[in-house]
Amino acid sequence: MKKLRRSARLVDMTQHLLAHPHTLIPLTLFSEEYGAAKSSISEDLSIIKEAFETQGVGVLKTVAGAAGGVKFIPRVNMEQATHFMRELIGHLEKPERLLPGGYLYMSDILGNPGTLANIGKLFATAFADKDVEVVMTVETKGIPLAYATAAYLNVPVVIVRRDNKVTEGSVVSINYVSGSSKRIQTMSLARRALAEQSRVLIVDDFMKAGGTIQGMIDLLQEFRATVVGCGVLVETADVSERLVEEYISLAKLQDVDLKGKQIEIELGSYFASEGE
Amino acid sequence: MKKLRRSARLVDMTQHLLAHPHTLIPLTLFSEEYGAAKSSISEDLSIIKEAFETQGVGVLKTVAGAAGGVKFIPRVNMEQATHFMRELIGHLEKPERLLPGGYLYMSDILGNPGTLANIGKLFATAFADKDVEVVMTVETKGIPLAYATAAYLNVPVVIVRRDNKVTEGSVVSINYVSGSSKRIQTMSLARRALAEQSRVLIVDDFMKAGGTIQGMIDLLQEFRATVVGCGVLVETADVSERLVEEYISLAKLQDVDLKGKQIEIELGSYFASEGE
Repeated sequence: MKKLRRSARLVDMTQHLLAHPHTLIPLTLFSEEYGAAKSSISEDLSIIKEAFETQGVGVLKTVAGAAGGVKFIPRVNMEQATHFMRELIGHLEKPERLLPGGYLYMSDILGNPGTLANIGKLFATAFADKDVEVVMTVETKGIPLAYATAAYLNVPVVIVRRDNKVTEGSVVSINYVSGSSKRIQTMSLARRALAEQSRVLIVDDFMKAGGTIQGMIDLLQEFRATVVGCGVLVETADVSERLVEEYISLAKLQDVDLKGKQIEIELGSYFASEGE
Repeated sequence: MKKLRRSARLVDMTQHLLAHPHTLIPLTLFSEEYGAAKSSISEDLSIIKEAFETQGVGVLKTVAGAAGGVKFIPRVNMEQATHFMRELIGHLEKPERLLPGGYLYMSDILGNPGTLANIGKLFATAFADKDVEVVMTVETKGIPLAYATAAYLNVPVVIVRRDNKVTEGSVVSINYVSGSSKRIQTMSLARRALAEQSRVLIVDDFMKAGGTIQGMIDLLQEFRATVVGCGVLVETADVSERLVEEYISLAKLQDVDLKGKQIEIELGSYFASEGE
């Protein structure tokens, strides 16, 4: 009977922790919910902790004291991350993905929930210690990545619009120069969409010169926000002048041979820095 | 020792099932992974099944036979759904949400991962038996809802663009009349984004007359797709002619008093039909 209770507790605590990442859960919440002693809950948590670490799900952090509890931090280890990204790069290198302008067709990849979850977890791992309060991206293709990342960080998403026809009250708009095409474009964000002085993680699917991301950084200055990180899925290597300095990429497009229909992609800067 | 093994198994099986909804998992996968007899795995699964059902996480379906296994179907019961939606409606009824044209400011709600997960699970419950193969929406605000729903159904998302400047190869575009503003607009989808004869669930954040959703339905005819359902978060009640017949809404905007700054929202059609 007692054994059954522990089993059911383990299942429920596991699903609760997974559904509430980066959230401090007081042990009393569990002990009241299951009518169990705190010592039993602690034992349960050490079982879950070990299983999560063995399987690469993430880590459980215990915070001691009166305001203490347990916090689940989703974390992908380097081996899992490398394996996943090498597989994804294999898909990305298929010649039929080549689009005019040296872009890659990635909508199918950005539409797959399993792939997105892996990418989101990877970004959440990379920026786990940055006290991210908001994940920001610009419409359209970066949106799923932003949500996947935000789900693992348990923070809201803010989406910058590419026009200024936003009917959401007072709006801040800036013009920016797209680094690769050199065209002047507009991006906007409703004033009420972002609290002043937020700590913001910028996420996007593709970066060439970085004009779009620099535009977001400029826009964030209007909100007196702090950019705590930039993460892009794919960056291109052949850029004469990179506008953005600090970012991580998960993959780097080394070479595109439009005639020969060859694409060469390597692991991005995230793997270089962490691998040292 | 044996007990510890079961505990670790329960934690890992729980996280595996949650991460792979609507996916048939052969029992052999678990028994090989943990070096456990199939009978032990079956016992584990009945513990998990009971815990999931008690806590309203979802159901475990067992499929017998050689090609059999277990499938996790995320499911929200009516009590949970009603409770969640009433709370959300409480947030939506705040007068400062009123936007010009009778729209509601919902970007904060659509940016919150926890809220999105609940809405996505609700749609996934409503359309669980429809053999959905793809979730479709149109940019921009419907995108997070589509992903949240698709994550629980474990199917890909396809995003229709609001312009025809899509650089994704051969594109199908249609013009449609926005039901409320009567303006002619364009929406496009790359030919390769959707396989012919797919079973598609349409999801969107807001529906007035339904012109946008009808546009998506028309576009889907070009792909010989089957629309297996339409789900909208909020529909408006004061529509003289509804273009779309079959859909479910989670909330219904009954009345907007722009002068008096009053918003009146009720539970949507999903609750009416299921409650009978």
